[in-house]
Amino acid sequence: MLRLDADAAAPVPAIERASARVDRAIGRKPRIVIIGGGFGGLNAAIELRKAPVEVALVDRRNHHLFQPLLYQVATAGLSPAQIATPIRRILSGQKNATVYMETVQSIDPRARTVTTCTRTLSYDVLVLATGARHAYFGHDGWEAFAPGLKTIGDATALRARILTAFEKAEVGDRGAERQRLMTFVVVGGGPTGVEMAGAIAELARKALASDFRNIDIAETRIVLVEAGDRVLPSFPAGLSQAAQAQLQALGVIVRLGDAVAAMDEEGVTLHSGERIQAATKVWAAGVMASPAADWIGAAADRAGRVMVSADLSIPGHPEIFAIGDTANVRGPDGRPVPGVAPAAKQMGRDVARRIIAGLRGRRVPPFAYRDDGNLATIGRKAAVADFGRIRLSGTFAWLAWSFAHLWFLIGFRNRIVVFLDWAWAYATFDRSARLIVERPEQPQ
Amino acid sequence: MLRLDADAAAPVPAIERASARVDRAIGRKPRIVIIGGGFGGLNAAIELRKAPVEVALVDRRNHHLFQPLLYQVATAGLSPAQIATPIRRILSGQKNATVYMETVQSIDPRARTVTTCTRTLSYDVLVLATGARHAYFGHDGWEAFAPGLKTIGDATALRARILTAFEKAEVGDRGAERQRLMTFVVVGGGPTGVEMAGAIAELARKALASDFRNIDIAETRIVLVEAGDRVLPSFPAGLSQAAQAQLQALGVIVRLGDAVAAMDEEGVTLHSGERIQAATKVWAAGVMASPAADWIGAAADRAGRVMVSADLSIPGHPEIFAIGDTANVRGPDGRPVPGVAPAAKQMGRDVARRIIAGLRGRRVPPFAYRDDGNLATIGRKAAVADFGRIRLSGTFAWLAWSFAHLWFLIGFRNRIVVFLDWAWAYATFDRSARLIVERPEQPQ
Repeated sequence: MLRLDADAAAPVPAIERASARVDRAIGRKPRIVIIGGGFGGLNAAIELRKAPVEVALVDRRNHHLFQPLLYQVATAGLSPAQIATPIRRILSGQKNATVYMETVQSIDPRARTVTTCTRTLSYDVLVLATGARHAYFGHDGWEAFAPGLKTIGDATALRARILTAFEKAEVGDRGAERQRLMTFVVVGGGPTGVEMAGAIAELARKALASDFRNIDIAETRIVLVEAGDRVLPSFPAGLSQAAQAQLQALGVIVRLGDAVAAMDEEGVTLHSGERIQAATKVWAAGVMASPAADWIGAAADRAGRVMVSADLSIPGHPEIFAIGDTANVRGPDGRPVPGVAPAAKQMGRDVARRIIAGLRGRRVPPFAYRDDGNLATIGRKAAVADFGRIRLSGTFAWLAWSFAHLWFLIGFRNRIVVFLDWAWAYATFDRSARLIVERPEQPQ
Repeated sequence: MLRLDADAAAPVPAIERASARVDRAIGRKPRIVIIGGGFGGLNAAIELRKAPVEVALVDRRNHHLFQPLLYQVATAGLSPAQIATPIRRILSGQKNATVYMETVQSIDPRARTVTTCTRTLSYDVLVLATGARHAYFGHDGWEAFAPGLKTIGDATALRARILTAFEKAEVGDRGAERQRLMTFVVVGGGPTGVEMAGAIAELARKALASDFRNIDIAETRIVLVEAGDRVLPSFPAGLSQAAQAQLQALGVIVRLGDAVAAMDEEGVTLHSGERIQAATKVWAAGVMASPAADWIGAAADRAGRVMVSADLSIPGHPEIFAIGDTANVRGPDGRPVPGVAPAAKQMGRDVARRIIAGLRGRRVPPFAYRDDGNLATIGRKAAVADFGRIRLSGTFAWLAWSFAHLWFLIGFRNRIVVFLDWAWAYATFDRSARLIVERPEQPQ
């Protein structure tokens, strides 16, 4: 494992070297290839909008996704298009940027090329911003039973599972099978797990409450399983307790200090020996970085994240940066930078500024994460917010969460439409997107 | 083939008999089973809301779909949830109605039972409202190349195909393959075909115009193939010409008097011998009724529609009704009732009123279709409208179309959201739902 403290103390003039190479390429602008159109990659591209460079952004999907609200798609509160925008729409007016919807096959760091299915792109500077997928810690077979939540496809598939479970319970007979269909296990007590558990509880107890005739929606059981001794371990202990109390007020059963030992179609077995019969399981227990480290043969941590220097470049490759969930980053204080959207955005902008500074022969201090606060929502008027000295829970935290998420939703139009959807849901308890789509969506 | 004129002259007192049987079932309310939650079935259920009956509505999907706007989902203008509402949400407050999301396996007209995967429902009155699917007239293999447009899944799959074609053209090289990727063939010049051709043209020339760097969107070719001698054959000839002129103004190439002779992954060959290389093909050339006639062993026409009497019941089975696209219906004037949403709605309400009248021992005159006008849209400020004496084309027809479709969209909330989306699209030429979803949506 690499030690980063030494790098942090004496930052390598990474970009100066990269740009020196660039300057030799007389007669053309430096080519910046960014892989990944998430928060990190997209913000890097946008920050380069006035720079004298050519930007190529490669993503295998056509849309940027506002992942913090993905759980609302999975629980029928929002439609996919409300939190996803075509990357080329966002960069439409940025003349120095080209978007390629392509899957990266390989990277040759010596030739400085990225190869996709159809072409080889050469780069002067490469930005790896490929994000993370859920990890099952050696139990990959569990994915079929307990899908995770990272893409629009994940969310609509999970939405179909959750809604179909209630539909099957309605047509089935009273008894154990009905109870199994109406039991939901969420694995992992981090922000995604807490949000999913709260949102399923609200979906069942409010939006669906009066729509069924045979089942009693009050019999819905939602179990949140967390291996640690509290939910939201990245928050102060007091807010963890507040979050747990708010979950329990919604009827969520919280199992702490226990973990999944076995899983099958019928349910889960915990380490404590408890067996929970549950038709629907949701995985929110861990993520693994994309294989960016393998592509370039770089050192990675156990979660697959590329080890980077204090300037976010890869040791030995000052022209390659890794940002967001792809990178293992420590601040100047040695603390790890969390895998959250604001950190990815800040890294994207930081790398872009480094590239611009390098072109001008200037130095930039090491990357430092600015923590503007931590928010997690549980449900209607239920959330926790940690702004350092100011810690909120309940209605005020929920208002702060709502405004923050609306504000950062890309696209003015989406802000308005999501606001109206939330206002409607708040006034009526209704959910706008309760669709079970039956036919596979086939990419061509 | 049955002749219906005799029936029309002397309507059988169908419901009186059905209700007489019902009255003997002392101590319980008559059971009305409705199969299908489209315009016909749903309106039948709603019209029965105050009747002393038990309504069971069976549909294999969980949502009612506003099919007239489905082409806007396929062309990224609207999100699925904006035109689809859970059936149990719509019937939530109707205490005499139960919704079953189930697939019908068989019907036993003698035992008067409907069997699904999980249960057998007995009925006193059965309403078949199962709609239609696209038909390929003996060329079922063409479905893989040229999908039709009947469900949300159809629409999102088609949307992915259309958007992916442009993405592939952008990353590919100039030449024949790029032209093939940017060519779209719509088969069938009825309302759906005209709407699809116009909407693809607007999507390409307006919404996508400034988002690509390598391809020239103006090279997009959209070909509408119609076997007859004019588009919109169900409209007056003058409006067909107006529609064709509006299509051509949008750049759509209209091929009349020609039909598809062969089709493969690469393109289509017409009867005239013309070969069109086209990556994306859309089928809008014909529909086939669902197999409701087979279920009950009833006589059907060539399109699979059940032959019904003037009271919409099936000859020999006064307790079974068929409505909407499932039924071959002629009005008292002998003219066939068209397969459009208003006709299905009217039949649904008519059957419900017949059932109620039958319970009270009253007779009801034969079903008569009230034609409130015919509308088809081509694009922005481009449409045709036939209100009998008043015929419109262009901006006024488009306004009439917009108001009519908004008005009939089920759900006040959807009306507002769709209106805002249209207003946004009108002001900005943008499309809100340009998503390519990569992962199959798996029903559980």
